[in-house]
Amino acid sequence: MEIITSVNNQRIKEISNLKQKKFRTESGKFFAEGLRAVEEAVRYADVTEVFYTGTEDRKLQELLNLAEEKKIPLCQVDDKVMAKLSDTKTPQGVLAVIRLPDNDLRQLQPHMADKKRHAGKQDSIGKAVPETDNNAPVVILDRIQDPGNMGTIIRTADAAGALGIILLEDCVDPFSPKAVRASMGSLFHLPVVQGVTAEEALTWCYRSGYEPVATAMQGAANIYKADLSKKTAFIFGNEANGVSEALQAAVQTRLFIPMTGLAESMNVATAAGIILFEGLRQRKFCR
Amino acid sequence: MEIITSVNNQRIKEISNLKQKKFRTESGKFFAEGLRAVEEAVRYADVTEVFYTGTEDRKLQELLNLAEEKKIPLCQVDDKVMAKLSDTKTPQGVLAVIRLPDNDLRQLQPHMADKKRHAGKQDSIGKAVPETDNNAPVVILDRIQDPGNMGTIIRTADAAGALGIILLEDCVDPFSPKAVRASMGSLFHLPVVQGVTAEEALTWCYRSGYEPVATAMQGAANIYKADLSKKTAFIFGNEANGVSEALQAAVQTRLFIPMTGLAESMNVATAAGIILFEGLRQRKFCR
Repeated sequence: MEIITSVNNQRIKEISNLKQKKFRTESGKFFAEGLRAVEEAVRYADVTEVFYTGTEDRKLQELLNLAEEKKIPLCQVDDKVMAKLSDTKTPQGVLAVIRLPDNDLRQLQPHMADKKRHAGKQDSIGKAVPETDNNAPVVILDRIQDPGNMGTIIRTADAAGALGIILLEDCVDPFSPKAVRASMGSLFHLPVVQGVTAEEALTWCYRSGYEPVATAMQGAANIYKADLSKKTAFIFGNEANGVSEALQAAVQTRLFIPMTGLAESMNVATAAGIILFEGLRQRKFCR
Repeated sequence: MEIITSVNNQRIKEISNLKQKKFRTESGKFFAEGLRAVEEAVRYADVTEVFYTGTEDRKLQELLNLAEEKKIPLCQVDDKVMAKLSDTKTPQGVLAVIRLPDNDLRQLQPHMADKKRHAGKQDSIGKAVPETDNNAPVVILDRIQDPGNMGTIIRTADAAGALGIILLEDCVDPFSPKAVRASMGSLFHLPVVQGVTAEEALTWCYRSGYEPVATAMQGAANIYKADLSKKTAFIFGNEANGVSEALQAAVQTRLFIPMTGLAESMNVATAAGIILFEGLRQRKFCR
């Protein structure tokens, strides 16, 4: 068992650098922090190394055992070194270095998500073995800029049973520390495909039997009157400007959330949650 | 028209200090930035002064005219001074200083919200004059710690037609710059009542015919099977720990959002959006 106590250690510097996109791209790695995220990474992602401080915590010890079973190298560091590695003011004492996944659109296969999920897990809908969701939604993000929104949408898409997430060009990096943190491990549960053009995304939809629908403010259908139970690819757009006009014009269906009150609009991650769960309600409960 | 160009001006220092809760409490004031938030503040809140930089922008000019009509003092400042006042890296060129509202539970009156809203406005449900929502929900927040979540929940509660928001003790301050920013003006649309004890909140519910319901992970009713169309006070809890056990034990009904996938939980602002809009769907569309 190796112990590093110097913040000037070359490897520590390199991992600390992964906060910057440039170094993530160069090295093909990123990191995740905290018990929940590291556990999900160890289970579902390609972890190259786990750093930790104390070992008194029982849950941390279980996590380290799991990592050892998977032959993942462990490295103990002191608080100073963890502070240098961490992106937060109060590090949680465990951090995993992970290889960037090389996802492409071919990985968005119906049922793929379910295979992973069927590992003896009960979903909160109450099925002992979750049933296969033939009409699991796909999420397409257009110029989402805030890493917190990015991570939160990934987390929500996971909870709503999405098949995967397509990020069009000009989205913020989902592997930045803040986005990883906000995704709470969900980044490791479903494929996130980056750098896709709008044309490629729409072609994928039509070939896969998915209807692309854009969220919009005007000229759109009320989500509570539309049929969201079939195969749908929901497009959510930029925080200030929504889905681009070109994309809105390219799709047949636009949706809006009926609002009352005086709010002019909603946070995009909240709107995504409302729409994805209205879809889940229609698929799993009733229309 | 006054123009301030010195960052050492005493008033500028005092307003810049409003980023800190201590100075907000002492002075009884806070600030909001950006066109949308300042416009809503000028319309619905008690603005003591508006600071701005350029005047070339047409929308800003309209906003300044509106402020002048309302006899609100205007003060032009240069970019350096605005940078000193602002809480953001890229100030939006307009900032309002506002008196802290002195809301208490008596202001949570059914219909109160509607009176404000009936000012010739069409809601997106499509009614020219929004109908009075007799069963408008109330939101109770228990130890919400993240200012972004606080502001986002206020924004969403507004969009869902909530009567008002009750903040139990130990919530983050909704008047901090980050919470104000995330609320996108909604903070000025409905009463946010601070520092209420759990007992006071429950007493208010029972006296007002509102059923308090807590969100929970276990032993709870599926939101898609529960009746959310009647008068309901939804309790949302701390980001890491949810609604306190004491509060969960004190209420008759606990609700959960059925999830599929592998996410263990959802962001609290997203969960609030899903539940508040399921309530709106049941009230306005169908059960």
